Amino acid sequence: MDEAAVRRLLDEVRAGTMSADDAVDALRRLPFADLGFARVDHHRALRQGRAEAVYGPGKTPEHCAAIVDELLRGGDGPIVLTRATDTQIAAVPQGEVHGTTVVWRPAAPRPERVVLCTAGTADLPVAEECAAVLYAHGIDAIRLTDVGVAGVHRLLASADELLSADAVIVIAGMEGALASIVGGLTPAPVVAVPTSVGYGASLEGVTALLAMLSSCAAGITVVGIDNGFGAASAVLRLLK
Amino acid sequence: MDEAAVRRLLDEVRAGTMSADDAVDALRRLPFADLGFARVDHHRALRQGRAEAVYGPGKTPEHCAAIVDELLRGGDGPIVLTRATDTQIAAVPQGEVHGTTVVWRPAAPRPERVVLCTAGTADLPVAEECAAVLYAHGIDAIRLTDVGVAGVHRLLASADELLSADAVIVIAGMEGALASIVGGLTPAPVVAVPTSVGYGASLEGVTALLAMLSSCAAGITVVGIDNGFGAASAVLRLLK
Amino acid sequence: MDEAAVRRLLDEVRAGTMSADDAVDALRRLPFADLGFARVDHHRALRQGRAEAVYGPGKTPEHCAAIVDELLRGGDGPIVLTRATDTQIAAVPQGEVHGTTVVWRPAAPRPERVVLCTAGTADLPVAEECAAVLYAHGIDAIRLTDVGVAGVHRLLASADELLSADAVIVIAGMEGALASIVGGLTPAPVVAVPTSVGYGASLEGVTALLAMLSSCAAGITVVGIDNGFGAASAVLRLLK
Amino acid sequence: MDEAAVRRLLDEVRAGTMSADDAVDALRRLPFADLGFARVDHHRALRQGRAEAVYGPGKTPEHCAAIVDELLRGGDGPIVLTRATDTQIAAVPQGEVHGTTVVWRPAAPRPERVVLCTAGTADLPVAEECAAVLYAHGIDAIRLTDVGVAGVHRLLASADELLSADAVIVIAGMEGALASIVGGLTPAPVVAVPTSVGYGASLEGVTALLAMLSSCAAGITVVGIDNGFGAASAVLRLLK
Amino acid sequence: MDEAAVRRLLDEVRAGTMSADDAVDALRRLPFADLGFARVDHHRALRQGRAEAVYGPGKTPEHCAAIVDELLRGGDGPIVLTRATDTQIAAVPQGEVHGTTVVWRPAAPRPERVVLCTAGTADLPVAEECAAVLYAHGIDAIRLTDVGVAGVHRLLASADELLSADAVIVIAGMEGALASIVGGLTPAPVVAVPTSVGYGASLEGVTALLAMLSSCAAGITVVGIDNGFGAASAVLRLLK
Amino acid sequence: MDEAAVRRLLDEVRAGTMSADDAVDALRRLPFADLGFARVDHHRALRQGRAEAVYGPGKTPEHCAAIVDELLRGGDGPIVLTRATDTQIAAVPQGEVHGTTVVWRPAAPRPERVVLCTAGTADLPVAEECAAVLYAHGIDAIRLTDVGVAGVHRLLASADELLSADAVIVIAGMEGALASIVGGLTPAPVVAVPTSVGYGASLEGVTALLAMLSSCAAGITVVGIDNGFGAASAVLRLLK
Amino acid sequence: MDEAAVRRLLDEVRAGTMSADDAVDALRRLPFADLGFARVDHHRALRQGRAEAVYGPGKTPEHCAAIVDELLRGGDGPIVLTRATDTQIAAVPQGEVHGTTVVWRPAAPRPERVVLCTAGTADLPVAEECAAVLYAHGIDAIRLTDVGVAGVHRLLASADELLSADAVIVIAGMEGALASIVGGLTPAPVVAVPTSVGYGASLEGVTALLAMLSSCAAGITVVGIDNGFGAASAVLRLLK
Amino acid sequence: MDEAAVRRLLDEVRAGTMSADDAVDALRRLPFADLGFARVDHHRALRQGRAEAVYGPGKTPEHCAAIVDELLRGGDGPIVLTRATDTQIAAVPQGEVHGTTVVWRPAAPRPERVVLCTAGTADLPVAEECAAVLYAHGIDAIRLTDVGVAGVHRLLASADELLSADAVIVIAGMEGALASIVGGLTPAPVVAVPTSVGYGASLEGVTALLAMLSSCAAGITVVGIDNGFGAASAVLRLLK
Repeated sequence: MDEAAVRRLLDEVRAGTMSADDAVDALRRLPFADLGFARVDHHRALRQGRAEAVYGPGKTPEHCAAIVDELLRGGDGPIVLTRATDTQIAAVPQGEVHGTTVVWRPAAPRPERVVLCTAGTADLPVAEECAAVLYAHGIDAIRLTDVGVAGVHRLLASADELLSADAVIVIAGMEGALASIVGGLTPAPVVAVPTSVGYGASLEGVTALLAMLSSCAAGITVVGIDNGFGAASAVLRLLK
Repeated sequence: MDEAAVRRLLDEVRAGTMSADDAVDALRRLPFADLGFARVDHHRALRQGRAEAVYGPGKTPEHCAAIVDELLRGGDGPIVLTRATDTQIAAVPQGEVHGTTVVWRPAAPRPERVVLCTAGTADLPVAEECAAVLYAHGIDAIRLTDVGVAGVHRLLASADELLSADAVIVIAGMEGALASIVGGLTPAPVVAVPTSVGYGASLEGVTALLAMLSSCAAGITVVGIDNGFGAASAVLRLLK
Repeated sequence: MDEAAVRRLLDEVRAGTMSADDAVDALRRLPFADLGFARVDHHRALRQGRAEAVYGPGKTPEHCAAIVDELLRGGDGPIVLTRATDTQIAAVPQGEVHGTTVVWRPAAPRPERVVLCTAGTADLPVAEECAAVLYAHGIDAIRLTDVGVAGVHRLLASADELLSADAVIVIAGMEGALASIVGGLTPAPVVAVPTSVGYGASLEGVTALLAMLSSCAAGITVVGIDNGFGAASAVLRLLK
Repeated sequence: MDEAAVRRLLDEVRAGTMSADDAVDALRRLPFADLGFARVDHHRALRQGRAEAVYGPGKTPEHCAAIVDELLRGGDGPIVLTRATDTQIAAVPQGEVHGTTVVWRPAAPRPERVVLCTAGTADLPVAEECAAVLYAHGIDAIRLTDVGVAGVHRLLASADELLSADAVIVIAGMEGALASIVGGLTPAPVVAVPTSVGYGASLEGVTALLAMLSSCAAGITVVGIDNGFGAASAVLRLLK
Repeated sequence: MDEAAVRRLLDEVRAGTMSADDAVDALRRLPFADLGFARVDHHRALRQGRAEAVYGPGKTPEHCAAIVDELLRGGDGPIVLTRATDTQIAAVPQGEVHGTTVVWRPAAPRPERVVLCTAGTADLPVAEECAAVLYAHGIDAIRLTDVGVAGVHRLLASADELLSADAVIVIAGMEGALASIVGGLTPAPVVAVPTSVGYGASLEGVTALLAMLSSCAAGITVVGIDNGFGAASAVLRLLK
Repeated sequence: MDEAAVRRLLDEVRAGTMSADDAVDALRRLPFADLGFARVDHHRALRQGRAEAVYGPGKTPEHCAAIVDELLRGGDGPIVLTRATDTQIAAVPQGEVHGTTVVWRPAAPRPERVVLCTAGTADLPVAEECAAVLYAHGIDAIRLTDVGVAGVHRLLASADELLSADAVIVIAGMEGALASIVGGLTPAPVVAVPTSVGYGASLEGVTALLAMLSSCAAGITVVGIDNGFGAASAVLRLLK
Repeated sequence: MDEAAVRRLLDEVRAGTMSADDAVDALRRLPFADLGFARVDHHRALRQGRAEAVYGPGKTPEHCAAIVDELLRGGDGPIVLTRATDTQIAAVPQGEVHGTTVVWRPAAPRPERVVLCTAGTADLPVAEECAAVLYAHGIDAIRLTDVGVAGVHRLLASADELLSADAVIVIAGMEGALASIVGGLTPAPVVAVPTSVGYGASLEGVTALLAMLSSCAAGITVVGIDNGFGAASAVLRLLK
Repeated sequence: MDEAAVRRLLDEVRAGTMSADDAVDALRRLPFADLGFARVDHHRALRQGRAEAVYGPGKTPEHCAAIVDELLRGGDGPIVLTRATDTQIAAVPQGEVHGTTVVWRPAAPRPERVVLCTAGTADLPVAEECAAVLYAHGIDAIRLTDVGVAGVHRLLASADELLSADAVIVIAGMEGALASIVGGLTPAPVVAVPTSVGYGASLEGVTALLAMLSSCAAGITVVGIDNGFGAASAVLRLLK
């Protein structure tokens, strides 16, 4: 089944002109490339409208290179490699490097306004991963940096960005209180990313994670600790 | 400042015709009714476009009644009382009772398709809270009940609902694997609710919570254990 | 050694006219009444300038009554019984009952301004214990109730109380973020009390406890979960 | 007692021609070689029908070499050294090296079908240990690699291997959901191995461990985190 | 598709005369009865060779009765209801009651020898659930009761049952050491069930769970705390 | 083998006139009474020089009665039933009741000095269990009650009991600091019992447990939370 | 708004001659310097009467230098850089180095008596950070070193410092009992700092943290693990 | 007060010819050498009958050397330095090095029989620390090495050592079951040392710790993880 066919299939499902049974059968028969150590899925980008992502840790540089090569051969959507080491970056085909994230074939710019709030400068690496994945999909995120709650006037000074956002991602370690404040200020969807920043009772991000899940600001959702990639993916799901 | 004024203010903020400073000042001066034991916020529904919610536990029936009375006097948006006991339900003004949730002034029906998947019958009370809050905002959720992963064909039989949803809420206890499967099948936003259903190593929902946060299906977000209200609120944020 | 002697001893220590060795010896020889099941300390109020406190749980009503009787016989300072059951309250000599706290011989009013912030109505029982202990020492606490961070304008409306306080006690469950916001607004000492209010990821107060300990607002200190008595005691230590 | 005698003894026990008392006495008197730092058990392979295994960590290369030497001197069954460092591998008698596992005297091939499913490429080192131990006992495991649940069609494409397996080992980190899906698809025994793959809320394998123990697919059993050796041993117990 | 067809299908899969694709399609199209609150799967017994199981907690007596009725209407294999309350037992069709487990249509006796070791008398309720599920499948388990390791001679006295078993289930709370001892004595498959018996550092079964997972006796597998049903299911998978 | 024979056997072992092999064989063949639900060990008292103990929780009153009856029939040493409910106490043969502990056939008084320190009155039930078990073996423990560290002069007043003790048991909840202070004051063996007394961060005894295990006073040993029986047993082991 | 204006503003607030609304507005409009990666707050020292603090971890040496430069340009109060690496120290403008803390523009000496008790020599680095921050504010702390509770006479020898202190900071790892003893000896405010010193059950400071929070000495407050900076900040809040 | 005086004082306390008050006063006035960074206690060996111990971690080599020098100058009892690095060992006065422990002035041999059981070779470093501390006090421990419960016959072969011991120390990681078995075999005092040996669910010794505390063998006591020094100290307390 070639790409055009897959696109038609998904259009039919969305339009309701294909039955559930037939759609699922079709999905199950989707091709993938078996590299031996990995099964590369050429049609996830089509199925889910998002980039193919390769998670670096635990893979040899050769594995990374082989998977990216295979993905570059199939489809024409964006590809990202996350948490890459310098050695892995050196081994893969050249792409755009954003910290530890590499992007190939970024999508054309999109107009949605996604705000990325970070509580402190130590949270920036997580924000950078998040921004790189958004960029791969055409989103140029608005950055609000160092707006932790201990000096709440720094956050209030940017209240208009929060009020007019299509989605807000809050990245914070320590006690993670920034998520609650932002959630109370904006009606937009808020995705909170706890980070492992902090020490002692921060428990490497567990405290921020629990605090965000217990937030008194209703409707905040949470992803895993330091998971900038996950937060970007969640926002991409909800932006139409 | 009367209600119309608040509406205009928010419209101006969204339109960009009011400065951030002025908007925040205005927000800070918003009136609330101080009942002594509670500060009732008459304009949250306007500010955030969502129902006023009263959380039952820890409040006397008299407190619940007084707060609901106050809210019914101000504004005309939906109101919900959650986790209410029978005694609290008897004390408050009559509303529509859905399990332990009471709804007043539900919004007019809206067309978005929100799917509510529950893994087992024991997860139904959480689903009921979630559905009641959605109903208060005009959403009649599509229910997929008892579609746990041990018999994955029961879930696949409903794949078309998942593929065409505007948002999916997955409610599951035990190992919470349903969130990962659903996340892999649909491109829609997925909000996962771990429940305290299960025993032994389920640790009263902590296992499902951790598993959902660690999901290999990218872009799933999570709310607190048994937090049907939170999941509904999150979905209401993202539905435009 | 009678009471006047103890007072003189402590005055001498504070004035520096008694050597360390002699002071410690004197302290070690302080009398206590051995009731068999308890050793009642008649001079703690003198030594530490605070009420004698009896912790109710785990004591029979008869034990409570005997200890309070003994304390009423010695000294003339304030006495409090905390976490008392109805049966214990019925058994002890009549005092002033504040929720589950009983006060005897409250001190004369003092002028210091202590602010008690509570995040939600469910935190009120902890606040009541805290206020009763302060009252026993002559402090009439200023109450800011229901000022959780999800509607931060309710807190800002009371900013002058925070700015002019001699000490602030923040009582909050769920994610405990109120402590960080208050800590950023006021230069006064802030004692944070996590409460077991909340559900799911609140872990019966552990989340708020960890979050308060990890606060990005410098110089906040924390007492145990639901420990209103402890917070009041800490404030009494620091007020001269 | 020589080896033939031990074999006869065990045959008698299994045939029921030796009393319990006599068998236990005999077992208790089994010889072992006391090397000072280790007591080498020459007859475990006979007693339990499995290879002698030496666990590398915490042993000096000299200790490893001495124990393997001693084992090679006694009996003729398979021997494995697990979690070996390069230095340990250099010190021991030459064997077949599979990653960090060394095998001596592998058993003759056996016909049973054992399927090894791994969720992602980062789980491969655990799978390799597991496969090496199976190989030492004559089992050439069938590998299903990179069949995580986020793209469930990759797993379904191998459904026939699962349905016809004598035993299935599922190796997965992150949320460990693969075990539940596999358990629902096959009637074969399923041994799940949580791995420390993942980050943040994966808690170094604890999340996958708890999720597998809470699986809604009945009859899945679990071994310790990253314990490929343990899973292989469990499968060897149940095959015949 | 009627029952005979399903049987034929499964026979073909096992014989290798049906392709994977066709088998999975057939499985996915298997009928289930949608009761609204539950999707009753009429063919699991066929697919997996095990009883249909209904887990009582969280279900109303009416739900239990409706599900059991539906199951009795379809197929002819064994059915079990676990963790049933007295009220649930009174509501369902009459079956054989074993403690909190109800069995309908038990299978004909099978010859395999399954040994059930319990460390103390307080572990008996878990053993009873386990034995009832085995009984439903025709297995009359051999019970070794009160053989905890503090008096190891009581266990050794039953060594012949352990040596000749087809499978052993070890049920123990507290420190769970019984699993390690049994695992060292027998070459049979050992499934360990930690129980919530004990106090203090037993942490309601978590200690026994962790200890069993860390056992130095290779090849022991573990199910969730108090999960007698799960252990029986695991043994039924491995008995051919 | 009758009782006299067992005594002789043990004497020989201690005197070194019996070989290890023969002693172990003899031990393994020791008789026990199999009641079906329990294996009653008639010779533990002889083997270990301590009372037979029956742990109440999880046993029916009938089981308790049958086991005690059986024990009273064999041997003549002390017997204790711990954690007994009123119903269990009513069902067993009449003995001496100490709180929730029942003692039969207490040993003759012994001269060793065992000191029992309790930090607060709420720790008394644990102390009572401990004292009852010591009493069963002839030890009349010296009680130091309510000597918590917040008023260290109450402890120092009893320093001579600590200095001259043969063993000290410290029973404390909350932060468990009493164990460290006592350990620094006396050269005697110190067994620490953490109790579940306290609230909030006391975590039902886990905090005291961890603190006692981390004590800076060298050579303190610890038993499980609330385990008064265990502490008494440990002291009985070390008193020659 | 220049500095003098800020000072006047705060004086007015404290004197009560400025309304709450105006004060908060003024605070919200306080300038900060946006460096891109950090928002430097020039007036916190004024608002809160404490030094500007820069937390080193997670910042590049260049970031540290830029922030310190910016702070040195604005205001004239003390500045501290904490947890600095050698590379960071080399990059920033020259200041006074105390271990890993750098101080610029320390305040003039103040007369208050702050006592710093450390349990063991391994706690000294935390004490050093604490003392450096106090020094930046003009406090020359009194050091009591190595006064752990295992040799309580070493602490008692310094009882006069404790009795006459304006505030006491207790720094202790392992079981943290020192905080309880000190709290019982002095009526002064006590801030406890758990340290990660110890091993095994010390759990990297969690045990000391929990123990200090559970202290039986009333009115002790606690900061995060190893948080010498936080303890100093808390003491600075309470010293008028 | 010179050494002879201290000895006389302690003799009087033990003989009962000195009052408690006078003894405590005397103890409080005991001299110590204040080195600035440490307070060296010259009389602990006298007071408690045990060696002076210096804990290496967190001390500079110079600190170690200064403390040992000071101790060598005072008294004539044994001295140990534990957990010493090579650099620390090079810096201190020459002593006898046992792994990471250094011993000076070991006591004359004593006749008591202390048995040291270790479960596996990886537990040997903990055993070595333990044996070195015992050696410093004149005890030459009997070593039973590699007697883990998976091959229980290796332990039973040494049953006579266990039966005739004055005290037994059990050192085990993983599931720690060895303590329960040994506790059931011997009437001697048993001190259990959990070690951080193992992986996965061993949780760096926490599993063994919890299991030992939950042991079904009554009267076992436990020290902290890897705390060989603590176990030796505990045994020295109980040996006369």
